[in-house]
Amino acid sequence: MTRRVEFADTDMAGIAHFTALFRYMEETEHAFYRSLGFSVHTRETDRILGMPRVAAGCEFRRPLHFEEEVEVHLIVRERTDRAIAYDFVFRKNEEGEMCEAARGHMAVVYAALDDSEQRICVVDLPEHIAAKIDVAPTELS
Amino acid sequence: MTRRVEFADTDMAGIAHFTALFRYMEETEHAFYRSLGFSVHTRETDRILGMPRVAAGCEFRRPLHFEEEVEVHLIVRERTDRAIAYDFVFRKNEEGEMCEAARGHMAVVYAALDDSEQRICVVDLPEHIAAKIDVAPTELS
Amino acid sequence: MTRRVEFADTDMAGIAHFTALFRYMEETEHAFYRSLGFSVHTRETDRILGMPRVAAGCEFRRPLHFEEEVEVHLIVRERTDRAIAYDFVFRKNEEGEMCEAARGHMAVVYAALDDSEQRICVVDLPEHIAAKIDVAPTELS
Amino acid sequence: MTRRVEFADTDMAGIAHFTALFRYMEETEHAFYRSLGFSVHTRETDRILGMPRVAAGCEFRRPLHFEEEVEVHLIVRERTDRAIAYDFVFRKNEEGEMCEAARGHMAVVYAALDDSEQRICVVDLPEHIAAKIDVAPTELS
Repeated sequence: MTRRVEFADTDMAGIAHFTALFRYMEETEHAFYRSLGFSVHTRETDRILGMPRVAAGCEFRRPLHFEEEVEVHLIVRERTDRAIAYDFVFRKNEEGEMCEAARGHMAVVYAALDDSEQRICVVDLPEHIAAKIDVAPTELS
Repeated sequence: MTRRVEFADTDMAGIAHFTALFRYMEETEHAFYRSLGFSVHTRETDRILGMPRVAAGCEFRRPLHFEEEVEVHLIVRERTDRAIAYDFVFRKNEEGEMCEAARGHMAVVYAALDDSEQRICVVDLPEHIAAKIDVAPTELS
Repeated sequence: MTRRVEFADTDMAGIAHFTALFRYMEETEHAFYRSLGFSVHTRETDRILGMPRVAAGCEFRRPLHFEEEVEVHLIVRERTDRAIAYDFVFRKNEEGEMCEAARGHMAVVYAALDDSEQRICVVDLPEHIAAKIDVAPTELS
Repeated sequence: MTRRVEFADTDMAGIAHFTALFRYMEETEHAFYRSLGFSVHTRETDRILGMPRVAAGCEFRRPLHFEEEVEVHLIVRERTDRAIAYDFVFRKNEEGEMCEAARGHMAVVYAALDDSEQRICVVDLPEHIAAKIDVAPTELS
Protein backbone atom coordinates (compact mmCIF):
# COMPACT_ATOMS: atom_id res chain seq x y z
CA MET A 1 0.00 0.00 0.00
CA THR A 2 1.15 3.53 -0.67
CA ARG A 3 -0.02 6.16 1.80
CA ARG A 4 0.56 9.89 1.89
CA VAL A 5 1.28 11.45 5.30
CA GLU A 6 -1.68 13.71 6.05
CA PHE A 7 -1.55 16.90 8.14
CA ALA A 8 -3.66 15.38 10.91
CA ASP A 9 -1.06 12.56 11.12
CA THR A 10 1.67 15.02 12.12
CA ASP A 11 2.54 16.30 15.57
CA MET A 12 4.31 19.43 16.79
CA ALA A 13 7.71 17.83 16.16
CA GLY A 14 6.80 18.29 12.49
CA ILE A 15 6.66 14.60 11.60
CA ALA A 16 4.10 11.79 11.54
CA HIS A 17 3.09 10.90 15.10
CA PHE A 18 4.25 7.38 15.92
CA THR A 19 0.67 6.11 16.29
CA ALA A 20 0.06 7.04 12.62
CA LEU A 21 2.39 4.22 11.57
CA PHE A 22 0.30 1.72 13.53
CA ARG A 23 -2.80 2.98 11.68
CA TYR A 24 -0.97 2.64 8.37
CA MET A 25 -0.12 -0.99 9.24
CA GLU A 26 -3.75 -1.75 10.01
CA GLU A 27 -4.93 0.00 6.83
CA THR A 28 -2.48 -2.11 4.84
CA GLU A 29 -3.71 -5.30 6.53
CA HIS A 30 -7.33 -4.44 5.70
CA ALA A 31 -6.43 -3.59 2.09
CA PHE A 32 -4.70 -6.99 1.95
CA TYR A 33 -7.94 -8.73 2.99
CA ARG A 34 -10.03 -6.66 0.59
CA SER A 35 -7.66 -7.81 -2.17
CA LEU A 36 -8.64 -11.38 -1.17
CA GLY A 37 -12.35 -10.49 -1.38
CA PHE A 38 -12.78 -10.48 2.37
CA SER A 39 -13.67 -7.83 4.95
CA VAL A 40 -12.02 -8.09 8.37
CA HIS A 41 -15.17 -7.03 10.15
CA THR A 42 -18.42 -8.76 9.30
CA ARG A 43 -21.77 -9.49 10.91
CA GLU A 44 -23.34 -12.93 11.02
CA THR A 45 -26.93 -12.97 12.38
CA ASP A 46 -26.23 -12.54 16.09
CA ARG A 47 -22.48 -12.07 16.24
CA ILE A 48 -19.71 -9.91 14.87
CA LEU A 49 -16.54 -11.43 13.44
CA GLY A 50 -13.33 -9.48 13.53
CA MET A 51 -9.58 -9.62 14.00
CA PRO A 52 -8.47 -8.03 17.26
CA ARG A 53 -4.77 -7.42 17.71
CA VAL A 54 -2.96 -9.37 20.40
CA ALA A 55 0.38 -7.64 19.86
CA ALA A 56 1.84 -4.79 17.84
CA GLY A 57 5.24 -3.15 17.69
CA CYS A 58 7.36 -0.87 15.57
CA GLU A 59 10.93 0.41 15.24
CA PHE A 60 11.15 3.94 13.89
CA ARG A 61 14.25 4.67 11.79
CA ARG A 62 13.58 7.79 9.75
CA PRO A 63 10.91 10.41 10.34
CA LEU A 64 7.98 10.64 7.92
CA HIS A 65 7.14 14.18 6.88
CA PHE A 66 3.92 15.87 5.81
CA GLU A 67 2.85 14.93 2.27
CA GLU A 68 5.59 12.35 1.86
CA GLU A 69 4.47 9.13 0.25
CA VAL A 70 5.34 5.99 2.14
CA GLU A 71 5.15 2.41 0.93
CA VAL A 72 3.91 -0.10 3.49
CA HIS A 73 4.81 -3.71 2.69
CA LEU A 74 2.93 -6.50 4.48
CA ILE A 75 4.62 -9.89 4.92
CA VAL A 76 2.77 -12.89 6.42
CA ARG A 77 5.26 -14.35 8.86
CA GLU A 78 3.15 -17.05 10.49
CA ARG A 79 -0.35 -18.51 10.25
CA THR A 80 -2.15 -20.97 12.47
CA ASP A 81 -5.85 -21.92 12.37
CA ARG A 82 -6.82 -18.93 14.48
CA ALA A 83 -3.99 -16.43 14.38
CA ILE A 84 -1.81 -14.57 11.90
CA ALA A 85 1.44 -12.69 12.43
CA TYR A 86 2.64 -10.05 9.97
CA ASP A 87 5.80 -8.05 9.49
CA PHE A 88 5.66 -4.60 7.92
CA VAL A 89 8.36 -2.63 6.18
CA PHE A 90 7.94 1.12 5.58
CA ARG A 91 9.94 2.59 2.72
CA LYS A 92 10.20 6.12 1.45
CA ASN A 93 12.07 8.00 -1.20
CA GLU A 94 15.07 9.90 0.08
CA GLU A 95 17.07 11.76 -2.52
CA GLY A 96 15.98 9.41 -5.27
CA GLU A 97 16.55 6.21 -3.35
CA MET A 98 13.97 4.06 -1.54
CA CYS A 99 15.11 3.53 2.03
CA GLU A 100 13.61 1.90 5.08
CA ALA A 101 11.81 4.29 7.39
CA ALA A 102 10.37 1.79 9.89
CA ARG A 103 9.78 -1.88 10.54
CA GLY A 104 6.72 -3.15 12.37
CA HIS A 105 4.87 -6.29 13.34
CA MET A 106 1.40 -7.29 14.43
CA ALA A 107 -0.31 -10.47 15.55
CA VAL A 108 -4.07 -10.88 15.25
CA VAL A 109 -6.59 -13.59 16.10
CA TYR A 110 -9.88 -14.32 14.42
CA ALA A 111 -12.63 -13.73 16.97
CA ALA A 112 -16.40 -13.64 17.39
CA LEU A 113 -18.26 -11.17 19.58
CA ASP A 114 -21.67 -12.42 20.70
CA ASP A 115 -24.44 -9.77 20.64
CA SER A 116 -26.24 -11.00 23.72
CA GLU A 117 -23.41 -12.15 25.95
CA GLN A 118 -20.89 -9.55 24.79
CA ARG A 119 -18.13 -12.13 25.06
CA ILE A 120 -15.20 -12.40 22.69
CA CYS A 121 -14.21 -15.94 21.63
CA VAL A 122 -11.29 -16.85 19.41
CA VAL A 123 -12.52 -18.98 16.49
CA ASP A 124 -11.04 -20.64 13.41
CA LEU A 125 -10.38 -18.55 10.31
CA PRO A 126 -12.95 -19.40 7.63
CA GLU A 127 -11.45 -22.01 5.32
CA HIS A 128 -11.91 -19.98 2.14
CA ILE A 129 -9.78 -17.23 3.70
CA ALA A 130 -7.20 -19.48 5.31
CA ALA A 131 -6.73 -21.18 1.96
CA LYS A 132 -5.66 -17.89 0.41
CA ILE A 133 -3.02 -16.96 2.98
CA ASP A 134 0.44 -18.45 2.84
CA VAL A 135 3.45 -17.62 4.94
CA ALA A 136 5.93 -15.57 2.91
CA PRO A 137 9.25 -17.17 1.97
CA THR A 138 11.88 -16.09 4.48
CA GLU A 139 14.03 -14.25 1.95
CA LEU A 140 11.27 -11.58 1.84
CA SER A 141 11.35 -10.64 5.49
CA MET B 1 -14.38 19.97 32.13
CA THR B 2 -10.69 20.80 32.26
CA ARG B 3 -8.50 19.09 29.67
CA ARG B 4 -4.77 19.25 29.07
CA VAL B 5 -3.60 19.41 25.45
CA GLU B 6 -1.73 16.15 24.81
CA PHE B 7 1.17 15.71 22.39
CA ALA B 8 -0.89 13.48 20.09
CA ASP B 9 -3.46 16.31 19.87
CA THR B 10 -0.92 18.66 18.27
CA ASP B 11 0.01 19.00 14.61
CA MET B 12 3.11 20.27 12.82
CA ALA B 13 1.90 23.86 13.19
CA GLY B 14 2.75 23.34 16.88
CA ILE B 15 -0.82 23.69 18.19
CA ALA B 16 -3.80 21.45 18.89
CA HIS B 17 -5.23 20.13 15.62
CA PHE B 18 -8.71 21.57 15.06
CA THR B 19 -10.32 18.12 15.30
CA ALA B 20 -9.00 17.84 18.88
CA LEU B 21 -11.44 20.55 19.93
CA PHE B 22 -14.33 18.51 18.55
CA ARG B 23 -13.14 15.54 20.61
CA TYR B 24 -12.90 17.76 23.70
CA MET B 25 -16.51 18.88 23.14
CA GLU B 26 -17.69 15.28 22.93
CA GLU B 27 -15.67 14.29 26.01
CA THR B 28 -17.28 17.16 27.90
CA GLU B 29 -20.75 16.08 26.76
CA HIS B 30 -20.11 12.51 27.93
CA ALA B 31 -18.76 13.73 31.28
CA PHE B 32 -21.95 15.79 31.60
CA TYR B 33 -24.08 12.65 31.16
CA ARG B 34 -21.92 10.66 33.56
CA SER B 35 -22.50 13.43 36.11
CA LEU B 36 -26.25 12.70 35.66
CA GLY B 37 -25.66 8.97 36.24
CA PHE B 38 -26.16 8.11 32.57
CA SER B 39 -23.97 6.67 29.83
CA VAL B 40 -24.48 7.93 26.28
CA HIS B 41 -23.93 4.51 24.82
CA THR B 42 -25.83 1.55 26.24
CA ARG B 43 -27.02 -1.85 25.13
CA GLU B 44 -30.60 -3.08 25.60
CA THR B 45 -31.09 -6.77 24.69
CA ASP B 46 -31.08 -6.52 20.90
CA ARG B 47 -30.32 -2.89 20.25
CA ILE B 48 -27.76 -0.20 21.02
CA LEU B 49 -28.82 3.25 22.23
CA GLY B 50 -26.60 6.21 21.50
CA MET B 51 -26.47 9.88 20.61
CA PRO B 52 -25.19 10.45 17.08
CA ARG B 53 -24.31 13.98 16.09
CA VAL B 54 -26.45 15.67 13.43
CA ALA B 55 -24.37 18.86 13.36
CA ALA B 56 -21.18 20.25 14.85
CA GLY B 57 -19.25 23.47 14.38
CA CYS B 58 -16.52 25.56 15.94
CA GLU B 59 -14.90 28.99 15.69
CA PHE B 60 -11.23 28.99 16.57
CA ARG B 61 -9.95 32.21 18.17
CA ARG B 62 -6.67 31.44 19.93
CA PRO B 63 -4.41 28.46 19.39
CA LEU B 64 -4.14 25.82 22.12
CA HIS B 65 -0.58 24.74 22.85
CA PHE B 66 0.93 21.50 24.10
CA GLU B 67 0.37 20.95 27.83
CA GLU B 68 -1.91 23.98 28.19
CA GLU B 69 -4.98 23.40 30.29
CA VAL B 70 -8.23 24.37 28.67
CA GLU B 71 -11.64 24.70 30.29
CA VAL B 72 -14.56 23.44 28.21
CA HIS B 73 -17.95 24.79 29.29
CA LEU B 74 -21.09 23.02 28.07
CA ILE B 75 -24.34 24.99 27.82
CA VAL B 76 -27.64 23.29 26.92
CA ARG B 77 -29.20 25.60 24.36
CA GLU B 78 -32.25 23.61 23.32
CA ARG B 79 -33.94 20.33 24.16
CA THR B 80 -36.81 18.55 22.48
CA ASP B 81 -38.06 15.00 23.16
CA ARG B 82 -35.48 13.49 20.83
CA ALA B 83 -32.74 16.06 20.31
CA ILE B 84 -30.40 18.30 22.28
CA ALA B 85 -28.33 21.26 21.13
CA TYR B 86 -25.31 22.46 23.10
CA ASP B 87 -23.00 25.43 22.95
CA PHE B 88 -19.41 25.12 24.12
CA VAL B 89 -17.00 27.79 25.28
CA PHE B 90 -13.25 27.05 25.48
CA ARG B 91 -11.26 29.20 27.89
CA LYS B 92 -7.59 29.22 28.71
CA ASN B 93 -5.23 31.18 30.87
CA GLU B 94 -3.22 33.80 29.01
CA GLU B 95 -0.89 35.88 31.14
CA GLY B 96 -2.98 35.38 34.25
CA GLU B 97 -6.34 36.02 32.63
CA MET B 98 -8.91 33.50 31.40
CA CYS B 99 -9.78 34.30 27.81
CA GLU B 100 -11.90 32.65 25.18
CA ALA B 101 -10.00 30.33 22.85
CA ALA B 102 -12.90 28.89 20.85
CA ARG B 103 -16.67 28.62 20.72
CA GLY B 104 -18.43 25.53 19.44
CA HIS B 105 -21.82 23.90 19.09
CA MET B 106 -23.24 20.45 18.55
CA ALA B 107 -26.68 18.95 18.01
CA VAL B 108 -27.38 15.31 18.83
CA VAL B 109 -30.38 13.01 18.61
CA TYR B 110 -31.20 10.02 20.75
CA ALA B 111 -31.17 6.96 18.52
CA ALA B 112 -31.48 3.18 18.55
CA LEU B 113 -29.48 0.83 16.35
CA ASP B 114 -31.13 -2.53 15.80
CA ASP B 115 -28.74 -5.54 15.89
CA SER B 116 -30.48 -7.56 13.21
CA GLU B 117 -31.67 -4.89 10.80
CA GLN B 118 -28.73 -2.52 11.33
CA ARG B 119 -31.09 0.45 11.02
CA ILE B 120 -30.81 3.65 13.03
CA CYS B 121 -34.10 5.09 14.37
CA VAL B 122 -34.44 8.32 16.30
CA VAL B 123 -36.28 7.65 19.58
CA ASP B 124 -37.41 9.63 22.63
CA LEU B 125 -34.89 10.42 25.36
CA PRO B 126 -35.61 8.24 28.41
CA GLU B 127 -37.80 10.27 30.80
CA HIS B 128 -35.43 9.97 33.76
CA ILE B 129 -32.72 11.64 31.67
CA ALA B 130 -34.90 14.23 30.01
CA ALA B 131 -36.14 15.26 33.46
CA LYS B 132 -32.60 16.15 34.48
CA ILE B 133 -31.74 18.38 31.51
CA ASP B 134 -32.91 21.98 31.38
CA VAL B 135 -32.08 24.60 28.83
CA ALA B 136 -29.57 27.09 30.27
CA PRO B 137 -30.73 30.63 30.96
CA THR B 138 -29.76 32.85 28.04
CA GLU B 139 -27.43 35.04 30.05
CA LEU B 140 -25.05 32.05 30.22
CA SER B 141 -24.58 31.64 26.50
CA MET C 1 -11.28 13.27 -3.50
CA THR C 2 -12.40 9.72 -2.88
CA ARG C 3 -11.65 8.30 0.54
CA ARG C 4 -12.32 4.88 2.01
CA VAL C 5 -13.54 4.76 5.63
CA GLU C 6 -10.77 3.05 7.60
CA PHE C 7 -11.25 0.91 10.71
CA ALA C 8 -9.50 3.47 12.94
CA ASP C 9 -12.03 6.07 11.69
CA THR C 10 -14.95 4.13 13.18
CA ASP C 11 -16.31 4.26 16.71
CA MET C 12 -18.30 1.82 18.81
CA ALA C 13 -21.52 2.96 17.16
CA GLY C 14 -20.15 1.12 14.11
CA ILE C 15 -19.79 4.18 11.89
CA ALA C 16 -17.16 6.81 11.08
CA HIS C 17 -16.61 9.05 14.11
CA PHE C 18 -17.79 12.57 13.33
CA THR C 19 -14.26 13.98 13.64
CA ALA C 20 -13.19 11.71 10.75
CA LEU C 21 -15.28 13.83 8.38
CA PHE C 22 -13.40 16.95 9.48
CA ARG C 23 -10.13 15.16 8.70
CA TYR C 24 -11.48 14.13 5.29
CA MET C 25 -12.34 17.79 4.56
CA GLU C 26 -8.82 18.88 5.45
CA GLU C 27 -7.27 16.06 3.40
CA THR C 28 -9.38 17.16 0.43
CA GLU C 29 -8.30 20.78 0.89
CA HIS C 30 -4.63 19.76 0.96
CA ALA C 31 -5.06 17.56 -2.12
CA PHE C 32 -6.66 20.60 -3.83
CA TYR C 33 -3.54 22.67 -3.10
CA ARG C 34 -1.21 19.88 -4.21
CA SER C 35 -3.16 19.80 -7.50
CA LEU C 36 -2.21 23.50 -7.85
CA GLY C 37 1.45 22.70 -7.20
CA PHE C 38 1.40 24.16 -3.73
CA SER C 39 1.84 22.77 -0.21
CA VAL C 40 -0.24 24.28 2.60
CA HIS C 41 2.62 24.08 5.02
CA THR C 42 6.01 25.44 4.02
CA ARG C 43 9.13 26.81 5.65
CA GLU C 44 10.78 30.06 4.61
CA THR C 45 14.14 30.70 6.33
CA ASP C 46 12.93 31.76 9.78
CA ARG C 47 9.20 31.31 9.58
CA ILE C 48 6.57 28.70 8.81
CA LEU C 49 3.67 29.48 6.47
CA GLY C 50 0.41 27.62 6.90
CA MET C 51 -3.36 27.83 6.79
CA PRO C 52 -4.94 27.62 10.24
CA ARG C 53 -8.69 27.12 10.40
CA VAL C 54 -10.79 29.94 11.85
CA ALA C 55 -14.07 28.05 11.57
CA ALA C 56 -15.34 24.61 10.62
CA GLY C 57 -18.74 22.96 10.68
CA CYS C 58 -20.61 19.94 9.36
CA GLU C 59 -24.13 18.55 9.10
CA PHE C 60 -24.26 14.77 9.21
CA ARG C 61 -27.08 13.19 7.18
CA ARG C 62 -26.21 9.54 6.61
CA PRO C 63 -23.72 7.43 8.53
CA LEU C 64 -20.51 6.36 6.81
CA HIS C 65 -19.63 2.70 7.35
CA PHE C 66 -16.34 0.83 7.47
CA GLU C 67 -14.79 0.32 4.01
CA GLU C 68 -17.38 2.49 2.27
CA GLU C 69 -15.97 4.86 -0.31
CA VAL C 70 -17.00 8.45 0.09
CA GLU C 71 -16.54 11.28 -2.39
CA VAL C 72 -15.60 14.62 -0.88
CA HIS C 73 -16.28 17.61 -3.13
CA LEU C 74 -14.58 20.93 -2.34
CA ILE C 75 -16.22 24.17 -3.50
CA VAL C 76 -14.49 27.55 -3.06
CA ARG C 77 -17.25 29.79 -1.72
CA GLU C 78 -15.28 32.96 -1.01
CA ARG C 79 -11.74 34.28 -1.35
CA THR C 80 -10.19 37.47 -0.04
CA ASP C 81 -6.48 38.40 -0.02
CA ARG C 82 -5.88 36.51 3.23
CA ALA C 83 -8.76 34.12 3.72
CA ILE C 84 -10.64 31.37 1.89
CA ALA C 85 -13.99 29.77 2.68
CA TYR C 86 -14.91 26.34 1.32
CA ASP C 87 -18.04 24.23 1.24
CA PHE C 88 -17.79 20.46 1.18
CA VAL C 89 -20.29 17.88 -0.01
CA PHE C 90 -19.90 14.21 0.97
CA ARG C 91 -21.55 11.68 -1.34
CA LYS C 92 -21.73 7.93 -1.14
CA ASN C 93 -23.30 5.10 -3.07
CA GLU C 94 -26.49 3.78 -1.56
CA GLU C 95 -28.19 0.98 -3.47
CA GLY C 96 -26.68 2.11 -6.74
CA GLU C 97 -27.37 5.81 -6.31
CA MET C 98 -25.00 8.54 -5.15
CA CYS C 99 -26.60 10.40 -2.28
CA GLU C 100 -25.48 13.13 0.05
CA ALA C 101 -24.03 11.89 3.34
CA ALA C 102 -22.90 15.18 4.85
CA ARG C 103 -22.31 18.84 4.07
CA GLY C 104 -19.48 20.81 5.64
CA HIS C 105 -17.70 24.13 5.54
CA MET C 106 -14.36 25.58 6.62
CA ALA C 107 -12.73 28.99 6.63
CA VAL C 108 -8.95 29.35 6.69
CA VAL C 109 -6.49 32.23 6.76
CA TYR C 110 -2.98 32.35 5.39
CA ALA C 111 -0.61 32.87 8.29
CA ALA C 112 3.07 33.06 9.20
CA LEU C 113 4.56 31.68 12.41
CA ASP C 114 7.80 33.33 13.40
CA ASP C 115 10.49 30.94 14.77
CA SER C 116 11.92 33.32 17.33
CA GLU C 117 8.86 35.20 18.54
CA GLN C 118 6.43 32.30 18.15
CA ARG C 119 3.73 34.71 17.02
CA ILE C 120 1.13 33.95 14.36
CA CYS C 121 0.40 36.77 11.87
CA VAL C 122 -2.18 36.66 9.11
CA VAL C 123 -0.51 37.49 5.78
CA ASP C 124 -1.52 37.78 2.12
CA LEU C 125 -1.82 34.63 0.03
CA PRO C 126 1.13 34.43 -2.39
CA GLU C 127 0.02 35.89 -5.71
CA HIS C 128 0.84 32.80 -7.74
CA ILE C 129 -1.57 30.81 -5.56
CA ALA C 130 -4.27 33.46 -5.31
CA ALA C 131 -4.24 33.70 -9.10
CA LYS C 132 -5.21 30.03 -9.36
CA ILE C 133 -8.19 30.10 -7.02
CA ASP C 134 -11.57 31.34 -8.19
CA VAL C 135 -14.84 31.32 -6.35
CA ALA C 136 -17.09 28.57 -7.72
CA PRO C 137 -20.21 29.60 -9.65
CA THR C 138 -23.19 29.52 -7.31
CA GLU C 139 -25.00 26.78 -9.18
CA LEU C 140 -22.33 24.38 -7.89
CA SER C 141 -22.88 24.91 -4.22
CA MET D 1 -1.82 7.79 35.47
CA THR D 2 -5.52 6.97 35.43
CA ARG D 3 -7.29 7.47 32.12
CA ARG D 4 -10.91 7.01 31.15
CA VAL D 5 -11.59 5.41 27.75
CA GLU D 6 -13.28 8.13 25.66
CA PHE D 7 -15.82 7.51 22.89
CA ALA D 8 -13.42 8.72 20.19
CA ASP D 9 -10.92 6.10 21.43
CA THR D 10 -13.28 3.25 20.54
CA ASP D 11 -13.74 1.50 17.22
CA MET D 12 -16.58 -0.48 15.69
CA ALA D 13 -15.53 -3.60 17.58
CA GLY D 14 -16.85 -1.72 20.62
CA ILE D 15 -13.51 -1.41 22.42
CA ALA D 16 -10.58 1.00 22.59
CA HIS D 17 -8.70 0.96 19.28
CA PHE D 18 -5.22 -0.47 19.79
CA THR D 19 -3.57 2.84 18.89
CA ALA D 20 -5.34 4.46 21.87
CA LEU D 21 -3.12 2.43 24.21
CA PHE D 22 -0.03 3.86 22.55
CA ARG D 23 -1.40 7.36 23.10
CA TYR D 24 -2.10 6.50 26.75
CA MET D 25 1.52 5.36 27.15
CA GLU D 26 2.82 8.62 25.72
CA GLU D 27 0.43 10.68 27.88
CA THR D 28 1.70 8.81 30.92
CA GLU D 29 5.31 9.45 29.91
CA HIS D 30 4.63 13.17 29.51
CA ALA D 31 2.80 13.33 32.86
CA PHE D 32 5.87 11.64 34.38
CA TYR D 33 8.12 14.42 33.04
CA ARG D 34 5.71 17.13 34.16
CA SER D 35 5.87 15.60 37.65
CA LEU D 36 9.66 16.18 37.46
CA GLY D 37 9.12 19.83 36.45
CA PHE D 38 10.13 19.20 32.85
CA SER D 39 8.34 19.39 29.50
CA VAL D 40 9.29 16.86 26.81
CA HIS D 41 9.06 19.44 24.09
CA THR D 42 10.83 22.75 24.49
CA ARG D 43 12.27 25.49 22.32
CA GLU D 44 15.78 26.90 22.74
CA THR D 45 16.51 29.95 20.54
CA ASP D 46 16.97 28.25 17.17
CA ARG D 47 16.21 24.63 17.89
CA ILE D 48 13.49 22.42 19.31
CA LEU D 49 14.29 19.73 21.88
CA GLY D 50 12.09 16.66 22.09
CA MET D 51 11.98 12.95 22.66
CA PRO D 52 11.18 11.01 19.50
CA ARG D 53 10.32 7.34 19.86
CA VAL D 54 12.73 4.80 18.38
CA ALA D 55 10.60 1.78 19.28
CA ALA D 56 7.20 1.01 20.76
CA GLY D 57 5.26 -2.19 21.31
CA CYS D 58 2.31 -3.58 23.20
CA GLU D 59 0.64 -6.89 24.06
CA PHE D 60 -3.11 -6.65 24.39
CA ARG D 61 -4.67 -9.04 26.92
CA ARG D 62 -8.13 -7.74 27.79
CA PRO D 63 -10.22 -5.26 25.84
CA LEU D 64 -10.78 -1.77 27.27
CA HIS D 65 -14.39 -0.59 27.05
CA PHE D 66 -15.96 2.85 26.73
CA GLU D 67 -15.88 4.83 29.98
CA GLU D 68 -13.76 2.24 31.79
CA GLU D 69 -10.97 3.67 33.89
CA VAL D 70 -7.56 2.23 33.21
CA GLU D 71 -4.42 2.65 35.27
CA VAL D 72 -1.22 3.07 33.28
CA HIS D 73 1.97 2.34 35.25
CA LEU D 74 5.30 3.59 33.87
CA ILE D 75 8.50 1.76 34.83
CA VAL D 76 11.93 3.05 33.79
CA ARG D 77 13.75 -0.04 32.56
CA GLU D 78 16.95 1.50 31.25
CA ARG D 79 18.62 4.87 30.98
CA THR D 80 21.74 5.94 29.12
CA ASP D 81 22.99 9.48 28.52
CA ARG D 82 20.77 9.92 25.49
CA ALA D 83 18.05 7.29 25.63
CA ILE D 84 15.43 5.92 27.99
CA ALA D 85 13.43 2.69 27.82
CA TYR D 86 10.15 2.28 29.68
CA ASP D 87 7.79 -0.59 30.38
CA PHE D 88 4.09 0.06 30.85
CA VAL D 89 1.47 -2.01 32.63
CA PHE D 90 -2.24 -1.34 32.04
CA ARG D 91 -4.59 -2.44 34.80
CA LYS D 92 -8.35 -2.26 35.07
CA ASN D 93 -11.03 -3.30 37.49
CA GLU D 94 -12.82 -6.49 36.55
CA GLU D 95 -15.47 -7.67 38.98
CA GLY D 96 -13.82 -5.92 41.89
CA GLU D 97 -10.29 -7.06 41.12
CA MET D 98 -7.53 -5.11 39.37
CA CYS D 99 -6.19 -7.20 36.50
CA GLU D 100 -3.69 -6.65 33.75
CA ALA D 101 -5.20 -5.47 30.47
CA ALA D 102 -2.03 -4.85 28.49
CA ARG D 103 1.74 -4.56 28.75
CA GLY D 104 3.72 -2.13 26.63
CA HIS D 105 7.18 -0.69 26.12
CA MET D 106 8.76 2.33 24.47
CA ALA D 107 12.27 3.57 23.87
CA VAL D 108 12.97 7.26 23.28
CA VAL D 109 16.04 9.38 22.59
CA TYR D 110 16.65 12.99 23.48
CA ALA D 111 17.00 14.95 20.25
CA ALA D 112 17.41 18.45 18.86
CA LEU D 113 15.78 19.69 15.67
CA ASP D 114 17.59 22.60 14.08
CA ASP D 115 15.30 25.35 12.67
CA SER D 116 17.45 26.19 9.69
CA GLU D 117 18.87 22.83 8.67
CA GLN D 118 15.82 20.79 9.70
CA ARG D 119 18.11 18.01 10.88
CA ILE D 120 17.46 15.84 13.92
CA CYS D 121 20.49 15.11 16.13
CA VAL D 122 20.50 12.89 19.20
CA VAL D 123 21.91 14.82 22.18
CA ASP D 124 22.56 14.24 25.87
CA LEU D 125 19.70 14.49 28.33
CA PRO D 126 20.09 17.70 30.39
CA GLU D 127 21.84 16.82 33.64
CA HIS D 128 19.13 18.18 35.89
CA ILE D 129 16.67 15.78 34.25
CA ALA D 130 18.99 12.80 34.05
CA ALA D 131 19.72 13.24 37.76
CA LYS D 132 16.05 12.70 38.56
CA ILE D 133 15.55 9.48 36.62
CA ASP D 134 16.60 6.14 38.04
CA VAL D 135 16.06 2.70 36.64
CA ALA D 136 13.31 0.92 38.59
CA PRO D 137 14.29 -2.06 40.75
CA THR D 138 13.66 -5.25 38.81
CA GLU D 139 11.01 -6.56 41.18
CA LEU D 140 8.71 -3.83 39.88
CA SER D 141 8.78 -4.83 36.27
